[in-house]
Amino acid sequence: MRATTIHAPFDMRVEDVPDPVVQDPTDVVVRVLRACVCGSDLWAYRGESARQPGQRIGHEFLGIVEAAGSEVTGFTAGDLVVAPFVWSDGTCDYCAEGLQTSCPRGGFWGSVGSDGGQGEAVRVPFADGTLVKLPADAASDDRLLTALLALSDVMGTGHHAALGAGVRAGSTVAVVGDGAVGLCGVLAAKRLGAERIIALGRHTARTDIARRFGATDVVAERGEAAEAAVRELTGGQGAHAVIEAVGTEQSMRTAVAISRDGGSIGYVGVPHGSGTGLDLSVMFDRNIALRGGVAPVRAYIPELLPDVLDGTIDPSPVFDLTVGLEGVPGGYKAMDERTALKVLVKP
Amino acid sequence: MRATTIHAPFDMRVEDVPDPVVQDPTDVVVRVLRACVCGSDLWAYRGESARQPGQRIGHEFLGIVEAAGSEVTGFTAGDLVVAPFVWSDGTCDYCAEGLQTSCPRGGFWGSVGSDGGQGEAVRVPFADGTLVKLPADAASDDRLLTALLALSDVMGTGHHAALGAGVRAGSTVAVVGDGAVGLCGVLAAKRLGAERIIALGRHTARTDIARRFGATDVVAERGEAAEAAVRELTGGQGAHAVIEAVGTEQSMRTAVAISRDGGSIGYVGVPHGSGTGLDLSVMFDRNIALRGGVAPVRAYIPELLPDVLDGTIDPSPVFDLTVGLEGVPGGYKAMDERTALKVLVKP
Repeated sequence: MRATTIHAPFDMRVEDVPDPVVQDPTDVVVRVLRACVCGSDLWAYRGESARQPGQRIGHEFLGIVEAAGSEVTGFTAGDLVVAPFVWSDGTCDYCAEGLQTSCPRGGFWGSVGSDGGQGEAVRVPFADGTLVKLPADAASDDRLLTALLALSDVMGTGHHAALGAGVRAGSTVAVVGDGAVGLCGVLAAKRLGAERIIALGRHTARTDIARRFGATDVVAERGEAAEAAVRELTGGQGAHAVIEAVGTEQSMRTAVAISRDGGSIGYVGVPHGSGTGLDLSVMFDRNIALRGGVAPVRAYIPELLPDVLDGTIDPSPVFDLTVGLEGVPGGYKAMDERTALKVLVKP
Repeated sequence: MRATTIHAPFDMRVEDVPDPVVQDPTDVVVRVLRACVCGSDLWAYRGESARQPGQRIGHEFLGIVEAAGSEVTGFTAGDLVVAPFVWSDGTCDYCAEGLQTSCPRGGFWGSVGSDGGQGEAVRVPFADGTLVKLPADAASDDRLLTALLALSDVMGTGHHAALGAGVRAGSTVAVVGDGAVGLCGVLAAKRLGAERIIALGRHTARTDIARRFGATDVVAERGEAAEAAVRELTGGQGAHAVIEAVGTEQSMRTAVAISRDGGSIGYVGVPHGSGTGLDLSVMFDRNIALRGGVAPVRAYIPELLPDVLDGTIDPSPVFDLTVGLEGVPGGYKAMDERTALKVLVKP
């Protein structure tokens, strides 16, 4: 089959690789209908996260089950399924608690020896623990299929951030980061009943989506000017719930600065740099909490799925460029240069 | 009156200072019956927190109301009262929410221009918002009075840490720090229903109190050996709730290392050093939360007071040395040299 591989920074290729097959009785093989490129894939693309030459890539996909191992009970050939961005066994303590990202037998798509989502097909370990079935008729609804793909990562990650930030009915929320995750954070906050949602971002194409997703205010300033703007919008106090969807020291510093005393930062931007963006003394004096991390998306799909199916939430606008599999390298380039927000792949 | 002052590092004095009087109609003056020395006072004593020469000190006290301003409605002369370690107006948004430490009109005892607890009397601003009345007959019960004094800081701070750590019925809790706050954290965790409480500490006099307060296990090792010991006690996973009651980079590093994935660190040790003890990448991968800060003790006194009065909790064993007011400088020396755990002052 054809699949995307990464050979060096900025050297993405689409190549012939072995067809995936059922290896363990708990595996299924999924034929990919939709995949996409994630902001976190760009860390590998830019060489800031190490990869072995030829390693697969892509951790978001949905598709049709093509073959199932003898011990798989939940899926059969022909099922439409979505995969969260990690696989997990579904039986350990952590899986039982809904923290599948900590499953000792879990792993990331595209890690050495595994298939990535940006290819024609994927061998899925622990299929019963990992995959979630979708209604078969969704396969013929292009818009819906795109919205459902967001459940593999960005929508669940935005939801995780909103939970970490403690968003509830009536909350005032600020969102740092105007990428797909930040935008999905807006959508998640709105879904949880936030009354006021302040989106920080300079790109009107993105902040327009934020407004469509429920943002009531947009702050286009950066740094201290942005902090001042959020304070002015919140009677000088800051936002009780802050979603941090970037992961840099600067964004963390902004998140702390715009938090209300007693508030919480829900952080889902993969941290680059240490904790030095966090001024613990400020957080201590103001009782600001930090909660988040890698989102256990698998736990959230059952909760979010009905709302996507009935249109209560529609994350599909975060995809603004569609490519075929051979167009994936160009998709990376477009996202790296910020001419695309998030690239949809139709193999 | 006589009161403790700090003139330079290691230069504590007991001197004649002006008698406090009602200045604002919302003030009361409290004659101090019991005060104490806090571990955080030692930062000033050691010169690690700056003080002006002659500044007052001490932020924990209880006593008898001697005079009340014309607008004070909750207290009259003769009332037995306990003060939390900050004063607060009792009327702002933050006070209404139980985050009195963020009251814009609040302040710390011993800050420039205010009285400290380690003296014969204290002028208390915003008395109605700040003080809590105690039963009059407690004044004649020496042991109970000492236990009630702990409500001014360490017991409420331990409770704040336990809440931040997410302690609930059945929790496995680890406590970093064997000072008075850490020990009160053990007591608070036990009170909240923790099933297993692992106290980290090397001083048997202290860990004996921890056991008396409800610790089920004691880990005397330090650093990586301590981390390994906690992992072994918890089936390799770590503790879901970690109380961090020290505030150094090393203690924060230990707290992260012994947290279970998905767990929470309740931190109440005043941070010295930046966030560099926090490895955000580790916290991110394992979904470890950080919650805490300066404890809004005023909010917790009404909840904890009945349990102290009926003996359900008795924090009085954290006081292991009693001095008169003239003995306060010696009390600092004893705590600094760790020959005393916490010094009780009877002016």
